Amino acid sequence: MTDVLRQPLDGVRVVDLTRVLAGPFASMLLADMGAEVIKIEPPGGDPVRQQGTLIDGFSAYFASFNRNKKSVVLDLRSEEGKERLGQLIASADVLVENFRPGVLAKMGFGPERLDALNPRLVVGSVTGYGADGPYADRPAFDFITQAMSGFMAVTGEADGDPMRTGLPITDLVGGLYCAFGIVNALRARDLNGTGQHVDAAMMSGIMSFMAYLASEQLATGQHPPRSGNDHPLVAPYGLFAARDGQVAVAPSNDAVLRKFLTVLGLGHVMEDARFDTNAKRIARRAELRQLIETQMCATPQAEWIDRLNAAGVPSGRVQTLEEALDDPQARAQEMVIEVEHPGHGPVRMLGYPVKLSATPCRTRRPAPELGGDTEEVLGGLDKA
Amino acid sequence: MTDVLRQPLDGVRVVDLTRVLAGPFASMLLADMGAEVIKIEPPGGDPVRQQGTLIDGFSAYFASFNRNKKSVVLDLRSEEGKERLGQLIASADVLVENFRPGVLAKMGFGPERLDALNPRLVVGSVTGYGADGPYADRPAFDFITQAMSGFMAVTGEADGDPMRTGLPITDLVGGLYCAFGIVNALRARDLNGTGQHVDAAMMSGIMSFMAYLASEQLATGQHPPRSGNDHPLVAPYGLFAARDGQVAVAPSNDAVLRKFLTVLGLGHVMEDARFDTNAKRIARRAELRQLIETQMCATPQAEWIDRLNAAGVPSGRVQTLEEALDDPQARAQEMVIEVEHPGHGPVRMLGYPVKLSATPCRTRRPAPELGGDTEEVLGGLDKA
Repeated sequence: MTDVLRQPLDGVRVVDLTRVLAGPFASMLLADMGAEVIKIEPPGGDPVRQQGTLIDGFSAYFASFNRNKKSVVLDLRSEEGKERLGQLIASADVLVENFRPGVLAKMGFGPERLDALNPRLVVGSVTGYGADGPYADRPAFDFITQAMSGFMAVTGEADGDPMRTGLPITDLVGGLYCAFGIVNALRARDLNGTGQHVDAAMMSGIMSFMAYLASEQLATGQHPPRSGNDHPLVAPYGLFAARDGQVAVAPSNDAVLRKFLTVLGLGHVMEDARFDTNAKRIARRAELRQLIETQMCATPQAEWIDRLNAAGVPSGRVQTLEEALDDPQARAQEMVIEVEHPGHGPVRMLGYPVKLSATPCRTRRPAPELGGDTEEVLGGLDKA
Repeated sequence: MTDVLRQPLDGVRVVDLTRVLAGPFASMLLADMGAEVIKIEPPGGDPVRQQGTLIDGFSAYFASFNRNKKSVVLDLRSEEGKERLGQLIASADVLVENFRPGVLAKMGFGPERLDALNPRLVVGSVTGYGADGPYADRPAFDFITQAMSGFMAVTGEADGDPMRTGLPITDLVGGLYCAFGIVNALRARDLNGTGQHVDAAMMSGIMSFMAYLASEQLATGQHPPRSGNDHPLVAPYGLFAARDGQVAVAPSNDAVLRKFLTVLGLGHVMEDARFDTNAKRIARRAELRQLIETQMCATPQAEWIDRLNAAGVPSGRVQTLEEALDDPQARAQEMVIEVEHPGHGPVRMLGYPVKLSATPCRTRRPAPELGGDTEEVLGGLDKA
């Protein structure tokens, strides 16, 4: 069936002016769904081509953020380059960019010009802080938006510093929201006949993930406490020592907690006057931990994880990134795929996070060589 | 213009069987884009109605994850409830659920039945680990998928424990991917005429955010080191003490680093034989920090942040969640909105993270009272 059904974005042409991370992630999400993404690169190429570990001059980082795209080299400082870009935009459905607000206009492609070139164009921007507001002109960087957004304030030990995460979370959230906005704007175009501008800001995106922490802050004025790997409002919760490693357990309510304690042979604890409410359990968190670890310490981690999950208690362990990438479930979900790059051999990279049963994401082509599609794409314009 | 243009998902009917967090976030993203989302609740309601701080019995947490939705009460253990659900599904474009894989089938709504009821139906599932694979039957919970995915392994101090983030990141990433997949599947339905199943797993979603950390791991076999708020491969980077607080600085390349040092009056450091390569700067990180803080310590944080950003150096500060929600940029981006709830008064909640210029997300209705739309929605079925 897959061969005869069209992918969701089949027939959608995307002109992609993005560099580095947030923007290329957005355009890759579109490419993975079947869009024709034309990555416009300056003569020197996207800087990411030179970043990360290079194997025979080839960047696995670049490969993993640019699969399913074409590459066209244009010097956008030259008149010819700008003319070609104008032609491409006229032929496209979507333009994606992650310049700072205003830069595209300075290059000669402000909103009026874009509208004149192509009134049906959807323009997607990933920005650090949004298209307007007092920080609109600030240069953006993931670490800074992690700091500004409140993300770091709710991450880390209770008595430690606010903590960033090592992954560029705000870039990726911004990129995913941009792709989501673009596909929605394409649907709006189907309804209304016209394109529009989609702006996804890294800071707004990560703030939208503050979820109940924000609800509570806004309702009560109380800061959510930083609490390391403990839950500030629930006990027991966290990492518990088994014979050969820690077991992560998160009983989300009393029913699940009862199952947890029962599996450990501690079912009576729920009736113990020292532990029969969550408030008491929080007050006696250390004592409760000791009871639990006394039961757990003789049996291997893997056995507890199996037994707890079988009983309906969410449980697992802290895996290194290497373990996660090689995890049986990650393998079953094909979260690591191998893409053959002619001239470079196979490159392993992250797979497709959302599974569509009839029109799945698939690898139609590896990340392009710099300018590898210039002739085909620009030649097509001349014929049009 | 906004009033006459249709929102992207205008005319799309979503039957929403989700509870708690990941699923309701996905269906809210659809509702915010204009879909008619019919939240099916058991007679007792979504448990979140009783969670978080209750103000006069009203949960701000529930309000902030269920705006723009309708509520219909159905007892899905009864035959009548199941019949009504079948009718609703036949009338819908999308079904969203976040049960464990297989539960919907046990309720009588397996894939064949859904296809018979409505071959054009898009079914979106948010799961912990995916619809199949060895962990498919495990109960899911954010803390566990943070642990299993490698997220915690790359978060925390170099000499400290792997660290979770306090926000339920894997729920929200899973929900956002689910919404993205659903809108794509609706487009595929426009092209192909048939619905399909969309599965977004929390673990796969957060793994897709491992970005260059995964590329490097897969290319080199080397674990990305945990490095607290320092960057493992770049110096200087991180938080630096100014007169009245720390300044977050992230010079992403040598050109930006030169600007940073020049603003501090330390431009000569780039030519100093002790600091003229990144490798040397990493080796002398502490010494470099001291040079920088000696310059910074006499001048207030806010002044450095302005001067650095003006010079093109990404810079900011660690804000508490309260500060972030009240930040001038967050206000300019309307990241906190106030929704009037008849009978409860105004409720402040997070705003819309992606901005569409012509058909913006907007608040059409507050989160519904339990069953508030039962009569209207089921009455409509009888007339159809």
